[in-house]
This record gives sequence, C-alpha cells and structure tokens, in this order.
Amino acid sequence: MIIVPERDVAGLITPAECFEAVESVFASMASKAAYNFPVIREAIGHADALYGFKSGFDRQSLALGLKSGGFWPGNMAKGLTNHQSTVFLFDADTGRCKAVIGGNLLTALRTAAASSISIKHLARKDAKVIGMIGAGHQSTFQLRSALAQRAFEKVIGWNIEPEALTKLKDVAAEKGLLFEAVDLDRMGAEADVIITITSSFDPILKAAQVRPGVHLACMGTDTKGKQEVEAELVAKATVFTDEIAQSITIGECQHAIAAGLIKQDAIVELGAVINGDHPGRTSDEEITLFDGTGVGLQDLAVASKVAERASASGQGTDVDF
Amino acid sequence: MIIVPERDVAGLITPAECFEAVESVFASMASKAAYNFPVIREAIGHADALYGFKSGFDRQSLALGLKSGGFWPGNMAKGLTNHQSTVFLFDADTGRCKAVIGGNLLTALRTAAASSISIKHLARKDAKVIGMIGAGHQSTFQLRSALAQRAFEKVIGWNIEPEALTKLKDVAAEKGLLFEAVDLDRMGAEADVIITITSSFDPILKAAQVRPGVHLACMGTDTKGKQEVEAELVAKATVFTDEIAQSITIGECQHAIAAGLIKQDAIVELGAVINGDHPGRTSDEEITLFDGTGVGLQDLAVASKVAERASASGQGTDVDF
Repeated sequence: MIIVPERDVAGLITPAECFEAVESVFASMASKAAYNFPVIREAIGHADALYGFKSGFDRQSLALGLKSGGFWPGNMAKGLTNHQSTVFLFDADTGRCKAVIGGNLLTALRTAAASSISIKHLARKDAKVIGMIGAGHQSTFQLRSALAQRAFEKVIGWNIEPEALTKLKDVAAEKGLLFEAVDLDRMGAEADVIITITSSFDPILKAAQVRPGVHLACMGTDTKGKQEVEAELVAKATVFTDEIAQSITIGECQHAIAAGLIKQDAIVELGAVINGDHPGRTSDEEITLFDGTGVGLQDLAVASKVAERASASGQGTDVDF
Repeated sequence: MIIVPERDVAGLITPAECFEAVESVFASMASKAAYNFPVIREAIGHADALYGFKSGFDRQSLALGLKSGGFWPGNMAKGLTNHQSTVFLFDADTGRCKAVIGGNLLTALRTAAASSISIKHLARKDAKVIGMIGAGHQSTFQLRSALAQRAFEKVIGWNIEPEALTKLKDVAAEKGLLFEAVDLDRMGAEADVIITITSSFDPILKAAQVRPGVHLACMGTDTKGKQEVEAELVAKATVFTDEIAQSITIGECQHAIAAGLIKQDAIVELGAVINGDHPGRTSDEEITLFDGTGVGLQDLAVASKVAERASASGQGTDVDF
C-alpha cells in the first residue's frame, strides 16, 4: 500500500495531467463504463463539521475507491485548511486497499480541470474575455487552468469582497494579461466565458445580464440550497453537467428543475460531448452552461495518477499492508 | 497516521476488549450519542465483487470513519480471503485521517461480540445448552465468544454440510464441553440459546421447533432477501437489534415486517437494555431474539482500540501524513 502525504502530491501530478485524467473519466461516465456511488454527507454534530464520502468505480481504468473528509470550520485557527480530504484506492481485482493519498490539492485541481474541460469543448473558439465570479481559494486554480484553453486576452472579475480580487489579478499578470474588476452588468456584457466559483445561496448573475454565445461554468453549487445564477439563465442555456443525478438535486440545475423551467432529459453529460456522441455548441449565439457538481470519480482518476507516479518513482511510503 | 496491517491486529486486541468496545457503542447508539451513516453497497460489475462502506460517528468516544471493502469471490484461488476490509479512522476535531487498520479479523470479532452481548443481556441466566446453526468461518468466533457468557454444559450444532461441524466440535473440546450434531427439531427442543450464522436465503428454523425461554441471536442476515428463521418465529419473540433501520430492511426482521407480523416500534435497540432503559427479558418463558445486522460503528469501536494500542506500544507503522 502506497501512502502519499498532502505535501508530496504537488510534485507528482501536473494540472495538465489532472485535465487528461478527468476528461477521460467524464468520457467513461458517459459511455457507462464508470459510475459514482451515492454520496454520503453528514453534519456530524461535532466541531460544526460536515463529513462524508464520494466514491465510484471506473471499469475502464479500474479506479475503485473513495474520497473521504469534509469541512472543519475551526481548522484555520489551528493552522490547518478547513477542507480536509483523503483519497483511498482499492485493487479492483482483490478488494485490498492499495493507496492512501492526500486529497486537498487534488480536489482543487480536479475541480479546476472540470470547468476547463467544459471550456475546451463548449466555449466559442474565438473567446477573448474570461470573467470570474468569486475570488476564494479555488478561484486561482480555476483561472489558471481556464487560461490554457483559449487565447484569452483579458480577465475580468467580480467578488462580494472586491479586495480579494487581487489574487486573480496576480494570476492574470503571471500570464501577461490585463485584469479589471467589474460589476455584474459589465461581467455579463463583456465576458465570452464566465466561471462562477462561490458558496452563494442566492443567484448572483441574472439571465438578462449575459450576452449571446457566452459559456458559463457554474462550479460552486454542490449542496441543496446553493445557487450562483438565476434559474432563468439555466433555462436559456444548453445545459451540460458532470453527473445528471447530482445536477438536478445538489447542483446549479436544482432550481430550474424545481421551478419546472427545464427538464432532466434536456441536460447533457459533458462526457457525451467528449465521446463525440453530442455535438456540444452548435452556433455562435448559443449560450452553453456547464453545471460542475464534483464527482468521486474525478478524485479517483487524479489520485490514481498520483499513486502510479509515486510507485514508479519510489516516492511516497510503501507500507506492507 | 498509524497503519496496522491485518497480520498485526490479532496481537493488539482481545475478544474481551472487542466485547467491551461494541457493548459501549451499542449503548451510545441507544442514547443517540452515536449514529451510523447510510450504508453503500454496490455490485461493481467486475470480478463479481460486492464493494461498499459502513460508517458512522460516536460523539462519546469521538470515533469517526468507515470500514470499506467487500466480497471478492475469486480471492480464495489467489491465496487471499474473499472478504476484504479496511477501517479508516479520522480525527473528529480536524477531519484528518489518523489510522488505517486491517479489518478482516476485526469484522469477525465485532460480529461475535454482538451476539455475545445479546446473550449476556437477554439469555436465561441458567442456560445450559447452546445451539449453533451454521459452521462457516464466522461460526467459531461466535461460539468462542458465546461460551464466555453463561455456564454452558453442552454445544449442539446443525449445518447444511454436516462435515463442517468438526470446527465447532473442536471449539467445544477446547472448553471441555460435549458436542453433538443434531437435526433442527432437536436443536429447537434442546437449546437454551441458538446462534444462526449462515448465508441462507430461506428460513432454516421454524417457530414450532423452538422451546419457550430460548434466546436466538440471528447473525447471518445482512442483505435484502436473506433469511435464517421463519417470520412467525420473529413474531413470537421479543425482538432486539443493533439498529432498527437495518433490521427492518436488510436484517432478519425484514420478512416479519413485510408480512405485517410485527411492527417497527416493537423492535428494541439492544443498547437500550445495556443502558437500563429497557428491562430486556422479563420471564423465563419469553422468547428473545437479537437481529444482528452489523453496523459501521462496531467496526470503528474495535479499530479505535487497535489504533490506540498500536500507538501506545509503538507497533504498526507511523507515517507522517
């Protein structure tokens, strides 16, 4: 059994490799070779923590296991990150545990990979302006990965606390790009691609604000009650997601579904576009929206890569288990 | 993070300590200080394997985590046991993974502990004859643990393949007790305590076969469709269980509930008897039945003990995670 602590993960996988691993497992999901098991998420009544598991199996890659962990709001005061997760991989041929991998950086990378994959397959090829709604810890991962997908010329950003936008300005500067803080009207009027990555419980972006042809990647909504964009905006878009079952229950689509504005069978798995079974965007005027809810198979895909790399390079700790 | 491989578990915990740990967590469950999360169980469509998780949290002991693994029928041919499981413990204050413990022996011990706890609290004090239905791998753990609960004088056994009963005869001999293979009529007529530990999908023991005052521990039914005793026998008994939600869906009670022979609110958590909130057996003629379905908290309780012991004694592998 190989053990890779959090601090060693960064040296064992690149964002580009995460992108490939997640793209491949989205394709497996759409072709029914891979599926996620039901999600467990519990408010445990101790330390205000949310704890649970995301898990699944990919018959193609044989990735089997789970990510376990959650959100401990008091961690920051102890010098730890509030989100804590660990990925456990099992041998699909024997059921034995084969790897334990720190899951914090991997969660950020696999989430950024998902929105980037949606941009690669769904955004207009001539997209020039990328808009960021949200400037928390995840937002820099999102932006860095997105910038590799199109020849973006400018980054615009909005955040409930505008001072946090300096993080995004710094990422833009790394790439030699302009950055501008904007209001939501300008965000909608100017951006060709918009990533929302907040923990909002109220719609931030309205249907009337966005321009035709925009691609939206809504990445923040992963719980019942959360919402980043108006349900009418979801209804105006061609909607793609990682997993339909999550999209309609805990993802951005939950509100448009509840309001009867869209039907479940109108939502397309992004993997179907990757596989060539769905055309994706069909016109320059079409609004496309990716509802990224986050699935266990993404975690298993990137952790499998780390485990493989650690074994091959003699890194990590090999315990005779 | 402490790692304890399967081969080291036996040296780090005794059956008596497992008994105490499980008795204590049953009490926590009944007083609502501990609860199990929903069980995940999936036929993954590879290697004929069943894979999943049992998990929970005990606010009293702060045991948090899961047992993951399952049943790989092809393992035996590879020199591995078919049941494979691993317990993962988390720090309830921070969400960090703190222990990875081999779960195979622990599963046998915690299951044997459960039936023994039911015998301690529910069997007649003057019980002399113990009957075993089933003679598989688990049965010897069950019998050894049960023999410590009363001054038993004789062991009787029934198994679908009678030759396997030599295992039980050997355990009886270790304790200087007589052993006799019997048919089911004699089993019911002579035994004061009966443990059923089979993987049957049809009722083996009938209501008309048992004598008044018997205590039954039905330990084999942990899946929809499995059944060890006639539903009418469940209906005749005062019924106790580890967890009511499991009892009525995947436990022995599923059939009596489905047939309308008993009501959910007539089933008592064994922990309530341990806590003194329920009197348990109230007469020498009463038939008591414990429906042992197996819960994640049992695994966490015994694994926590192993982790504690391994840390204190410097055994296991301590990995800086």
